[in-house]
Amino acid sequence: MDLGLAGRSAILMASSRGLGRACAHSVAREGVNVVINGRTAADVATTVGEIAAAYGVNALAVVGDATEPNTHDRLLEACGQPDIVLLNGGGPPVTALADIEPEQWQDAAQRLMISPLMFVQRVVPGMRERRFGRIVAITSAMVKAPNPALGLSAGPRLGMTAVLKALSTEIVMDNVTINQLLPERIDTERQQYMARLIMEQRGVTWDEARAAQAAMIKAQRLGRPEEFGDAFAFLCSTQAGYISGQNLQLDGGSYAGVF
Amino acid sequence: MDLGLAGRSAILMASSRGLGRACAHSVAREGVNVVINGRTAADVATTVGEIAAAYGVNALAVVGDATEPNTHDRLLEACGQPDIVLLNGGGPPVTALADIEPEQWQDAAQRLMISPLMFVQRVVPGMRERRFGRIVAITSAMVKAPNPALGLSAGPRLGMTAVLKALSTEIVMDNVTINQLLPERIDTERQQYMARLIMEQRGVTWDEARAAQAAMIKAQRLGRPEEFGDAFAFLCSTQAGYISGQNLQLDGGSYAGVF
Amino acid sequence: MDLGLAGRSAILMASSRGLGRACAHSVAREGVNVVINGRTAADVATTVGEIAAAYGVNALAVVGDATEPNTHDRLLEACGQPDIVLLNGGGPPVTALADIEPEQWQDAAQRLMISPLMFVQRVVPGMRERRFGRIVAITSAMVKAPNPALGLSAGPRLGMTAVLKALSTEIVMDNVTINQLLPERIDTERQQYMARLIMEQRGVTWDEARAAQAAMIKAQRLGRPEEFGDAFAFLCSTQAGYISGQNLQLDGGSYAGVF
Amino acid sequence: MDLGLAGRSAILMASSRGLGRACAHSVAREGVNVVINGRTAADVATTVGEIAAAYGVNALAVVGDATEPNTHDRLLEACGQPDIVLLNGGGPPVTALADIEPEQWQDAAQRLMISPLMFVQRVVPGMRERRFGRIVAITSAMVKAPNPALGLSAGPRLGMTAVLKALSTEIVMDNVTINQLLPERIDTERQQYMARLIMEQRGVTWDEARAAQAAMIKAQRLGRPEEFGDAFAFLCSTQAGYISGQNLQLDGGSYAGVF
Repeated sequence: MDLGLAGRSAILMASSRGLGRACAHSVAREGVNVVINGRTAADVATTVGEIAAAYGVNALAVVGDATEPNTHDRLLEACGQPDIVLLNGGGPPVTALADIEPEQWQDAAQRLMISPLMFVQRVVPGMRERRFGRIVAITSAMVKAPNPALGLSAGPRLGMTAVLKALSTEIVMDNVTINQLLPERIDTERQQYMARLIMEQRGVTWDEARAAQAAMIKAQRLGRPEEFGDAFAFLCSTQAGYISGQNLQLDGGSYAGVF
Repeated sequence: MDLGLAGRSAILMASSRGLGRACAHSVAREGVNVVINGRTAADVATTVGEIAAAYGVNALAVVGDATEPNTHDRLLEACGQPDIVLLNGGGPPVTALADIEPEQWQDAAQRLMISPLMFVQRVVPGMRERRFGRIVAITSAMVKAPNPALGLSAGPRLGMTAVLKALSTEIVMDNVTINQLLPERIDTERQQYMARLIMEQRGVTWDEARAAQAAMIKAQRLGRPEEFGDAFAFLCSTQAGYISGQNLQLDGGSYAGVF
Repeated sequence: MDLGLAGRSAILMASSRGLGRACAHSVAREGVNVVINGRTAADVATTVGEIAAAYGVNALAVVGDATEPNTHDRLLEACGQPDIVLLNGGGPPVTALADIEPEQWQDAAQRLMISPLMFVQRVVPGMRERRFGRIVAITSAMVKAPNPALGLSAGPRLGMTAVLKALSTEIVMDNVTINQLLPERIDTERQQYMARLIMEQRGVTWDEARAAQAAMIKAQRLGRPEEFGDAFAFLCSTQAGYISGQNLQLDGGSYAGVF
Repeated sequence: MDLGLAGRSAILMASSRGLGRACAHSVAREGVNVVINGRTAADVATTVGEIAAAYGVNALAVVGDATEPNTHDRLLEACGQPDIVLLNGGGPPVTALADIEPEQWQDAAQRLMISPLMFVQRVVPGMRERRFGRIVAITSAMVKAPNPALGLSAGPRLGMTAVLKALSTEIVMDNVTINQLLPERIDTERQQYMARLIMEQRGVTWDEARAAQAAMIKAQRLGRPEEFGDAFAFLCSTQAGYISGQNLQLDGGSYAGVF
């Protein structure tokens, strides 16, 4: 299926590893020039290199924390007129709700809600003028069903969801869409780290820990990063211009609610 | 993007025209052999012909009302082991809730809820055994926000949605997914018919009627059937196996709710 | 809190036992004259007797299956101008989705969707004219999160939900509201029956079976019928006239979704 | 209906006027001792006076901004063991999403999300120990359908909603519930202020402006503060202990979505 993206350009936050990297691969494969971002220079360089080699597109590196205004500046220097923006970034640590300090809330609100919204403010006017824009945010399955251990993530992320939804209704008339991808247990380094935690905590083998993870998902398996990346590519496609304000769950069919 | 569908086969209900035809085109383009269905032999023949010519896949015709068991039999004779099933069919007439007779409810329940569920029962066991299945139902934007004039459609369709959701959680473990597409004002013959109604009712020109339709959508335009078809093709793709139980709105960003 | 209901009259389907009976008690306590309905004459007589004695209101008996038109006639003969209507009735048996026959679907659709909607059609015009109406349907926690074993119930009930929602938006201007109560594990005879099933199936004691039921609920207990009845009474109150189209879950805080 | 609240005590944020004051009246009428709070000493004194005189309960005044930790301290000094807490506070100004500065987001996040959550942290342990707690937050109809002009309010409020939902599932086992009331156009001073804005902007009379407001609501009228207060009282009642994690809309039946 031709996604109509050849020659487009994308700024992809936190794309040197994990879900972000998978998204970068999927759109680069479709001919999109990409700005790869991450906090570790070596990781960014590796991903830039593999993408440039594999797909023959331009791939630029911006090393830095994508929640900081300074990194926003440099992302926009690398690509002044992005057609595609991936909002992505690591979540805060698991913390019991009773123990969260105000500063942690402020930090989480800044990183997961305010910072991405400030970046969106900067790119939307140009996208509207140019009559094409695809903004996709990676949030979490949790925004629809918040987990008490992850409130520090769920709160600001759902806050961002509300604002992006409101904004989406205003700008879709200019072919600028905003959608969200809600992953649950996609098999990135993070899930492998969590499998090792399970091994330690329960005294089980790697295979047993992995089986325990798979059993939490209705599909009885973890998701594959490539599946996630391709869903991103589809939402960025030319033919997805009539789809906006959606929260697409990639959760192996696990969510119990009708909507 | 390679959807990994070449050589797969699909049964597509009510696919000789409109949204169903667009879906048929999109998967046939990806190499899927299709069974085209509709109530009018000439329309079915036309769509079969154009698809076979355009994409070089096998296209078979089954003329008949897809809500009847007899048509189900013949669809399954034409394709005994479908990988993909499109549940689709026309809606009941616009009727004020106060005027609906029990027989109309029964008929609508039969056509829009019971009949598709009976067909699903017949194809799911084979899909599970073969470890691949993609069932997609076309419902309506209305299932999330029911319109009083269309209760006869919204009720049974949302009823079907509940059952498909429940079923989806049981079968995704075998790589059989069930998702729904919720269209709003995709530019098929039906919208053109409704534009003519607007012309008559308001005494306006064709262009004014079309503008009035576009103004009802946040995107300020109607959707294109090809956009709809490609969303269907994506949900049928190999890489969409981790997406199930979703209700994807193709509504030009019009739905106001967060979820 | 004065609910402003003294002298009002209510038709309460399936109110001789269980949840319906609890609803009858709660509104009768507030001075509402009630029509008690059930299929077993003795149960109806008992509930009529205890309500008349306890609250000094008029309590009439209508024995019959509330899903049948003939019973509808007699309910309306007993109370021609109801201010309050409770839509209620038993659910179909637990059945695997793969095994449901078309006739079972038709029967469930008739009982759980069509029949209550037909009764609503009959009472709404009068309620609108008289500028007061409170229609409350008891559905199930399942309409928001359908259980595969209970699809035969979830489908038609969610179908009815869609239609009642659509209708509610049209009639609230005349102070006629429609809301739904979604119970999960309220401690009626049904839960006691299910506890006995658990005893047999798992070979456990009554107390263990009850503990197992409580453990399924976030509140770690079953709901009390009186709690349910009082929620019904609140939704029927004069001061609830600005609340319509709501699905209030009485589930001990168990539902995981934000909305 | 006896709500079982006589002798209970409540801390009610922003309760000297408007919705908060209506909530205070409704629970004081049921025998609850109340802490009245507001930023204007005269308003607080007036409300304290009228409540003490009308219902014979203890009413204490705490003047101060309920989003500040110092005010939290004083609220808890006035009532160290609250059974009921109302989370309430004014919203931020209407601001186009494109114009919001980071400091405004931070301020809104602090006031509408972080501050109430910090107060909840302080009262929940005692409520759990005492096996009774009713926390109710007033948010807005907008949290389910965010308005672009009110993103500064919708984002943090929905963020708070996610966290309260997660928390609610953990504490309901100790008879501590958390629910939310979502008002739309309840007839407080704020709506009267907005009516005057409409008069100026459109050059219409007071009655025309009021009619315009009523027309935005499906009930064709504004809500009454007393209706709102009584819904609050019901959610605080002893018999509402099985209801938690709910978002009850008081919107005159206006929300279009099924859920």
